[in-house]
Order: sequence, then C-alpha cells, then structure tokens
Amino acid sequence: MRQSYLFTKTKREAQSDETSVSAQLLLRAGFVHKEMAGVYSFLPLGLLTLNKIIAVIREEINAIGGQELLLSSLQDSAPWKKSGRWSDEVLDIWFKTKLKNKTEVGLANTHEEALTNLLRHHVSSWRDLPLYLYQFQTKFRNELRSKNGLLRTREFIMKDMYSFSRDEKEHEEFYEKAKNAYKTIFKRLGIGDQTVLTFASGGSFSEFSHEFQALSEAGEDTIFLCEKCHVAINKEVKDRLTACPQCGQEAFKERSAIEVGNIFPLGVKFSEALNLEFVNEKGVKLPVVMGSYGIGPARSMATIVELLHDAKGMVWPREVAPFTVHLLALPGGEKEADKLYDSFLKEGIEVLYDDREATAGEKLTDADLLGIPLRVVVSQKTVATKEAEVKKRTGEKLEMVRLTNLVSYIAEAA
Amino acid sequence: MRQSYLFTKTKREAQSDETSVSAQLLLRAGFVHKEMAGVYSFLPLGLLTLNKIIAVIREEINAIGGQELLLSSLQDSAPWKKSGRWSDEVLDIWFKTKLKNKTEVGLANTHEEALTNLLRHHVSSWRDLPLYLYQFQTKFRNELRSKNGLLRTREFIMKDMYSFSRDEKEHEEFYEKAKNAYKTIFKRLGIGDQTVLTFASGGSFSEFSHEFQALSEAGEDTIFLCEKCHVAINKEVKDRLTACPQCGQEAFKERSAIEVGNIFPLGVKFSEALNLEFVNEKGVKLPVVMGSYGIGPARSMATIVELLHDAKGMVWPREVAPFTVHLLALPGGEKEADKLYDSFLKEGIEVLYDDREATAGEKLTDADLLGIPLRVVVSQKTVATKEAEVKKRTGEKLEMVRLTNLVSYIAEAA
Repeated sequence: MRQSYLFTKTKREAQSDETSVSAQLLLRAGFVHKEMAGVYSFLPLGLLTLNKIIAVIREEINAIGGQELLLSSLQDSAPWKKSGRWSDEVLDIWFKTKLKNKTEVGLANTHEEALTNLLRHHVSSWRDLPLYLYQFQTKFRNELRSKNGLLRTREFIMKDMYSFSRDEKEHEEFYEKAKNAYKTIFKRLGIGDQTVLTFASGGSFSEFSHEFQALSEAGEDTIFLCEKCHVAINKEVKDRLTACPQCGQEAFKERSAIEVGNIFPLGVKFSEALNLEFVNEKGVKLPVVMGSYGIGPARSMATIVELLHDAKGMVWPREVAPFTVHLLALPGGEKEADKLYDSFLKEGIEVLYDDREATAGEKLTDADLLGIPLRVVVSQKTVATKEAEVKKRTGEKLEMVRLTNLVSYIAEAA
Repeated sequence: MRQSYLFTKTKREAQSDETSVSAQLLLRAGFVHKEMAGVYSFLPLGLLTLNKIIAVIREEINAIGGQELLLSSLQDSAPWKKSGRWSDEVLDIWFKTKLKNKTEVGLANTHEEALTNLLRHHVSSWRDLPLYLYQFQTKFRNELRSKNGLLRTREFIMKDMYSFSRDEKEHEEFYEKAKNAYKTIFKRLGIGDQTVLTFASGGSFSEFSHEFQALSEAGEDTIFLCEKCHVAINKEVKDRLTACPQCGQEAFKERSAIEVGNIFPLGVKFSEALNLEFVNEKGVKLPVVMGSYGIGPARSMATIVELLHDAKGMVWPREVAPFTVHLLALPGGEKEADKLYDSFLKEGIEVLYDDREATAGEKLTDADLLGIPLRVVVSQKTVATKEAEVKKRTGEKLEMVRLTNLVSYIAEAA
C-alpha cells in the first residue's frame, strides 16, 4: 500500500488522557482512534494487525476441531434468567437496552447462555457430541472504570469458544488440547516466552480455571510466578495454593500481568440450568459437560505493544505485523523505489511504501513508530551502488543488499 | 468438510412464526438460528455464505479505492447532537444504553457522525482528500416491527462506505464509480438481472439518492419499473418524477422489491455540522463533500434465497455458495467417496461431504435443501462403472463422469 494514499497520519504527541503505553503508541501511529473511554475504532493499519491476530487464532482453533459461527449481540433475557445471570447484581457489567415494545434486552458480554440454548435444537444423542464451537464476536462490558487503553475496553471483539462433551474425561482431553493451542497462539503472536499458564479461580463451576498471563507492569492482575517452572498462581487463589501445582516448590515472585486468555471448565452448570441434555449409548439422559475458552484479539494486540516496544515505537513480530516490509523512498531513490514496490507486489510481499512528500527524518521516525519488521531504504546513495539499505526493526545493523537480490533476501529474513 | 462433523441438522418444518420464504429455508437448512424477532445468529453454513458475500463486496470496494476500517458500536452523543440526529424523535430506530456513571450512549445505526468526527484528526489539506472509507460492522436498529425474516433485522452486519471529496465534481465521479461497483457486486451475487437502479428520495441532503432494488414479492418497497429500460422510481418520489429519468418515457409497472443497496449524496450536511473542513489549493477553507454507500450482506443473502430458490430448497450461485461441491456417499460408494473427498481437498475444491449414516433419500433431500451448486453422488451402481453421478442444482440433467475426470470436470462446470 502506498503511504501517500493511507488516510491516517502519525502524531508526535500522545493523547493526554491515555496512561497506557500501548494505547499511546497505537494512537500516535494511527492504528486506532479513541471514541470514548474504553471504546476504540480500528483504522486501516490497526485493522490489518487485528485481522492477522484473528487469522492466527482461527487457524489454531480450527486445528483442534473448532467450528466457527457468529451469535447475536442482542440477548433475550429468558436463557439468562434460567442461568441466574440476568440480574445486574449477579453480573455487574451488563449493558441493557429496550425494544420499542419496552421489552428489556441485553448486549452479550459472553455467550454461554445463548449457545447452550441454541444447541438444544441440534443436540439430542451421544452421536451429536462432542462439539467445539467458536466465534469472533463483539462483546459489550459495562466496566466501571476504563483507564487502561485497549487492555480493558467496554466494546471488543472476542474469540470465545465453548466445548460440549459427553463426560468429564472427554472434556478434560479437549481442555488440554485447548491449553496447548493457546500456548501455540501466544508463541505465534510473539509473546509466548513472557506468557505464563496461571491457576485461577474456577468460580462456582470448578476448582480452578486457567489464565494465560503476560508479564507486564501494565497488567491489572497480580500473579505469583513459580521461581522454578513457567507456571503461576493468580492472587485470588494464592491462599488456597501454597505450592506450585506443577513442580511442587513454594518460592514465588509477585508480578503484574495482563490476562491475554483464559480457559474455564464449566461442568454442567449451564447445561443443567438450560436443559441441554443428550441420550448416551446406554439410553441414559445426561447433561452436557461444558467448557469456555476466550482470547481478546485487541487486548493481545495491545499486549504485544506493551511487551515489544522500544523508545522509538512499536516492534511487530512478522506474523502479526500489518505489513512485512516498510519501503522508504528517500531523495534520489524514488524511481528505483517505485520499481521495487511493483516487484514486491508482484511477488506477494506485503509492503507499505512510503512515497510521501516528506523529509528523510520524518520517514525514518515514522518507520520506527509503526514498527514494521523490515525497513528498506532506497536513496540516491544506495541507488549509486544498485543497492538498498535494509534494517530489521528488532536490531541496529544496517545491511546493504543488491536491488536484484531483495526479494529473496526478504523471503529469508523471516 | 465432513457433514457428520457439522453440528447443525436440517429440519423438515419451518418455524411457524416465520412468513418469509428465505428465513424459512435458511432456518430449515441450519444456516441461521432465530434468537428473537429480527435477531439471527449465523451457524457454520450461514457464516461461510455470509463471508463469501462479504469477500465479493470487499473486492469490488477495494477496486474503487476503498480503505477498510472498523468503527465502534458504542456512540458518544456529542457528534450526534451536532448533526441533530441524537433525538429519538428525529431518528426513531435508536437503541440507547447507559454507562455505569449514567451517561447515555447509543448503539450505532449508521456512522456518518462518528467517521466525520474522526476525520477531523486526519484531514486538513486538499492533499488529504479524496478518501473512501468503509467497514463491515454490526448495526443496531430498533425496528418497530421485524416480521420479514432476515430482510429486516434489528442487528446486522452492514458494509457502509463514506466518501470525502473536495468538490461536487470529484464527488460525482466517485458516486458513478460506486454505482458501477454496486452493479458488479449484485451481478456477482447472482441477482444482477433482477436488481434495478431506483431513484429514491435524497432526504434533506440532495434531490435524489439511488437504491438497488431486487424485484421480489417478499420486498417491503414499492417501485415503479420503467417498461423500456432497467431503471425504476421509488414510490416515495413518484409524484415528483412522471418520466423515467433514464429514457424519458412515462409507462411504468408497479412492483414489490427488496432494497439490497443504496447510495446517497450527503453534500456538506455532516461536514458543516461537525466542522470537517480542508484548505484548498488556493488557501480557502471549505467543508468536505460527502456521500454514503450501504449494502447489507445478510439481507443480500436472504434476497438471493428469495430470488433463486425452488420447491426443493435453496439454489446458491457458485460464487457465494458455502461449498462448491456436495459429495454424497450412498450405500456401496463409501470407499470411493472417501477417496474422492481427499482428492477434492488436495485440489482445493470446497466440498461438503455427506458421510453421515443416513438413507439415500435423506441425503438427496438435504442436498436439494442446502442448494450447493454441484451434487456428486457415489453409489454401488456408479462405482461399478468407475463413475460418479453429477447434477447441477440449477438443472435436472444427471451426468455420469469418470471418477478420474471429476476434478477437471468440476473446474470447468463453473
């Protein structure tokens, strides 16, 4: 894409009301726009990045047998009354509104009720199970405070998956698969090393749930990280767990962390409340055993920025970067840069081409802020030797590459 | 995809409260689920189809220079108060809700206000224009009645584009491009011949807007179709237009139609109200000239069903069908069907494979209901001659094709 055509502009200053570094950088770089506290719109670069993250999640969830659907935001109260979660006192993040005939409806903050209710039309026998259903769908959560940029918002796309199994054993097998899929996802998003499996409260449903917590001072959660293995305990269950559930030792470090994902055994709470039953091979009617599995792609995006930025700007991992290459035409290099741009497009290389009328300084500063993995500079000087100057966003080394070798160089520089 | 794995089941009977044929068929085939009047969820086959429609629209809108973004649903009242559309009396389809601090927020039913407001941060000079920005985003509209299935819903994904031009001439040039893009889109969706450009009210903004009306008894609109050319006049402006604006003749046929798209010149109404100005080449400050362009992918999906179904079920055009091929294993053909399924996947052919334990009758009936373009049946009889029986959903002819020739046959049978 030609940057002269991109409608967003970078800004030197962050918005004064943003305290989170990720929100400041994403706003300054024109990835997002703040509509109000806790509500952001995604501009072209931000949407490209968000969609890359979604694609990674979709691929890994499909690989463990997920089937994608798309449920509605508007919620009939009936199934929520059955589960006991319609009341604002029980679930304190509801947004509610009214139909013209005064009927109160909710905006979905999660979908256990709606999906369990829906499945009664499609599940009756053990042959219909297990099922793993997921979506990328907009959730609305009426947070009391929303001061942490994109890390806690009132409206966000969530990947929520729900598993429907015939018994505990089948549930647990899938739960482990989902755990591994989540590890793969965060690894592919570039934050695997800093993200730890964390034992958390199981609510009224089960003993524990599991969170994926990314270690960061920007995080709102407090966890206790085992000093020996890559596992942690959420503060909320620290009194119940004195030893690491994985290695048994008792020394922990207190850390702040961002909850980037969570998986939750639900047991039969919702299937019993909403009457989702199946007949097993012996002809016995049983409630379906459920689990839920969430990741917020936008919160993941902000977390990547929190963990991987430097003083100059963002540093996107290749798999989620909006573009692979940022091509900069500096004075005297315009003609060769134009040619390179065309050849990159032809080769299917995702390239943002800074063809703007701007100074070299502005272009280089913006390139650092935007954080695209490979910067390719073409100027009078580089053209003189039929070369381009290549720099990885993660390093300082400048490398001169022959123009004719650039395409293969980029393919290898993953 | 293996049909034994697909979680939805077909139903023999439609829901009794649905009068629209498209909703009945989409519900029976398990493409959608009705959450409440005017609110539907998309199940795997429905979501696949919806995403195909979205992909067609995205391609054509990108081709005329559209840049994709994603705005929020939650709406701050301030810009709407400036445009005069915050009041429920002016805009009678608002859903409103409240933040914890009692601040009233709206759920977006359209995005002129939010986007015009946002652009003030990115547009200042003539060099920043023109811009064509669009999204696929969930709209909420509090319809008084919602009795027409997926043709009029309270929550739906809309492709809404907004154009920002420097003057009327530049606006009109893009408006014509958008008109042609819309024609291409409806042609690719398989309803081009039945969809007519219709002159409609321009509201308070301009003399006329243009709708794309698909001729159908299920439609809620009344239009007057010129007897000579492929153009119509919406009933709402019939008193103002006695002659066809295209060919000048005065004979019309009254028809019911579904509004599948509309394009709307907005003039400077929103840019003046919200102060979106730019400085032109002569240094003069001017308001931006705007237009808006909408298509509802789900309404398009329902319209395709209305126009193309037959007594046995839906008939999807290849470009939007959830799968290209419906492979049916009938008794004695299972082993060869398994092999074919693998070879189709290997060749990248999108195939739904009916490997269920069901009777031949059930499988054939479901295939007609689901409406996938090519049906390939493998049975003991066809295997005996190393063949499969192929039938297009649009025809009656059964064709015997050698198993080894099937892949190339399918590629050609577009």
